[in-house]
Amino acid sequence: MQKVKKIQSFLQSNNIDAAFITTPDNVFYFTGFKSNPHERLLGVLIPKDKTPFIICPQMEIPDALAAGWTGDIVGHQDTENAWDVFVRMIEEKVGAIHSLALEKAHLTIERHEAILERLSSINISRIDEKINDLRVIKSEEELVNLRKAGELADYAIEVGCKEIAEGKTELELIAAIELALKDKGVTQMAFNTTVLSGPKSASPHGTPGDRKIQKGDFVLMDLGVVYNGYCSDITRTVAFGEPTAAQKDVYETVRRAEEAAVNAVKPGVTAMELDKIARDIITEAGYGEYFTHRLGHGLGISVHEFPSITGVNDMKLKAGMVFTIEPGIYNPAVAGVRIEDDVVVTETGVEVLTKFPKELIII
Amino acid sequence: MQKVKKIQSFLQSNNIDAAFITTPDNVFYFTGFKSNPHERLLGVLIPKDKTPFIICPQMEIPDALAAGWTGDIVGHQDTENAWDVFVRMIEEKVGAIHSLALEKAHLTIERHEAILERLSSINISRIDEKINDLRVIKSEEELVNLRKAGELADYAIEVGCKEIAEGKTELELIAAIELALKDKGVTQMAFNTTVLSGPKSASPHGTPGDRKIQKGDFVLMDLGVVYNGYCSDITRTVAFGEPTAAQKDVYETVRRAEEAAVNAVKPGVTAMELDKIARDIITEAGYGEYFTHRLGHGLGISVHEFPSITGVNDMKLKAGMVFTIEPGIYNPAVAGVRIEDDVVVTETGVEVLTKFPKELIII
Repeated sequence: MQKVKKIQSFLQSNNIDAAFITTPDNVFYFTGFKSNPHERLLGVLIPKDKTPFIICPQMEIPDALAAGWTGDIVGHQDTENAWDVFVRMIEEKVGAIHSLALEKAHLTIERHEAILERLSSINISRIDEKINDLRVIKSEEELVNLRKAGELADYAIEVGCKEIAEGKTELELIAAIELALKDKGVTQMAFNTTVLSGPKSASPHGTPGDRKIQKGDFVLMDLGVVYNGYCSDITRTVAFGEPTAAQKDVYETVRRAEEAAVNAVKPGVTAMELDKIARDIITEAGYGEYFTHRLGHGLGISVHEFPSITGVNDMKLKAGMVFTIEPGIYNPAVAGVRIEDDVVVTETGVEVLTKFPKELIII
Repeated sequence: MQKVKKIQSFLQSNNIDAAFITTPDNVFYFTGFKSNPHERLLGVLIPKDKTPFIICPQMEIPDALAAGWTGDIVGHQDTENAWDVFVRMIEEKVGAIHSLALEKAHLTIERHEAILERLSSINISRIDEKINDLRVIKSEEELVNLRKAGELADYAIEVGCKEIAEGKTELELIAAIELALKDKGVTQMAFNTTVLSGPKSASPHGTPGDRKIQKGDFVLMDLGVVYNGYCSDITRTVAFGEPTAAQKDVYETVRRAEEAAVNAVKPGVTAMELDKIARDIITEAGYGEYFTHRLGHGLGISVHEFPSITGVNDMKLKAGMVFTIEPGIYNPAVAGVRIEDDVVVTETGVEVLTKFPKELIII
């Protein structure tokens, strides 16, 4: 309930009666209960000075309790209106509320209207930034999970390198990697594992398929696991067969850019400075037009969360922030290369969570 | 553009200037372009009588074109405000608009505010129901994909039955199933494959883990694939070793309930009648309290879509609707059993897309 208390002090200092949180990842952050309710209502109401309650589909109550939730809980059936149950629970457990903070970047117009219909004179404000402020600084307990998720990502890349073979398809390589992870007890990938080979590696959002790996390919592997609810996200690009000088130049440019950005991480540096360090190296090498995305993104319970490491974010890094650094060059005529690590900002600099080597591996 | 034209006639008859669609599955439905933009803006603006345009991250433009999109397209960079680009594109390509239909069940409060800030005197209405009305009736082209997705789901269950063995864990069984599917060219599961064994099969939303399958277990397999953008969703429960009489009774009750509901499917029957047919059989057998969820859900581009087959939905079935029928009994003291098929309402009755046998299989 430590995290709930932080929201409660925020509500008290801003004179807001309650916050209602429905993003599955935020519900997990505050309650330990991870669930994807699809279109059904699942959330946690945190009053400024009373016991919070979870509202969820009736059949999920045992799972919420098993997750260790110690606040109140109310279930709703598919046959009743969940919002009526929600408002009744507020009346019973909290009393009249005049102001409510919502996740405006997540809650839909429809749900907003459902709340306004039932609590018509209520004053609605945002809770998004406060939650981001809390989630963006990871606790030591969260870092333990993120380190382990990073280790498993390293292992996955190691397996991928061993399994690459002439004629094997991208999908077969993914199957081999994921099988090895399941043997290590991994129950969920952080996102669809990506393996792209040859010219396909130059598509930053390409889809793996039945293309067979062949000599002369670069093979790009982008993957992550979920460990105790926390994500990793790693990319490595390796050469299958001897690369050309032009391919090597692309690779080494990305590597220099990535390492320079990683080494620059410390409290006080801004996100945009990091982005610029990597981007300048790539631009000076003549590949600027082929680095078509931001440098990185925050990582934690969500595989994309705050902070965003872009060329326009002047936010200063603080100890406890965790994010990816993942420059890439996507030149269809030569090669597609991306190298991605997960890093933590420490009091004095940086801790890298993904440790798989970055020297060009030729298989 | 046939589907776009249907939205345009809706807009014209309701005197709405344009619709803006941002749900990834709806964007795919209208444009053929499937993408998960995460927090970035991706959508299609459909004016009532002009060429529609896609707005997407700059780097996704090639993928949208490759998907066959023939309307206009505009990209935005991470360094610019996507909403400014959006409004500029409306001014250039469409002109002044005074009314806009949005997906209120999807669009966030924040995005709603971003639109209102820039188009301040605009009248906002809902497009959700119109899109649901279109999507809920599948075309023959869509049915071709859904049939193939069903076939692959059958194959996955067949593999699962062959791979079940004493001491194999739930996760190992999942890995074996998914590997076999990858060999068939399946690139994406419709949702996280679920295998639950023994007492865990009695948790309708349990998580697979390293529990080893042992004699006397019921093994519940719930999975689906995505084929050409369309989902399947099947559940079968099999016995590993000879089941007890009590376990058999649970199984046969679910089977009778499932088959009775499937056989009752035809145009004009209501969703709630179907739910009642299955629920009555389970209740009369004394297991009513253990059937804790609705009978089924619509299936198509999304793994959960309209129609919802619940005890309170009086919607009449129409030819072309596709949904799951999936009664279950979750009695922790005896067994957890669910049987799920995907069905299409035809002009005269029902077509079942998943054909794996439902007689109790004892392995």
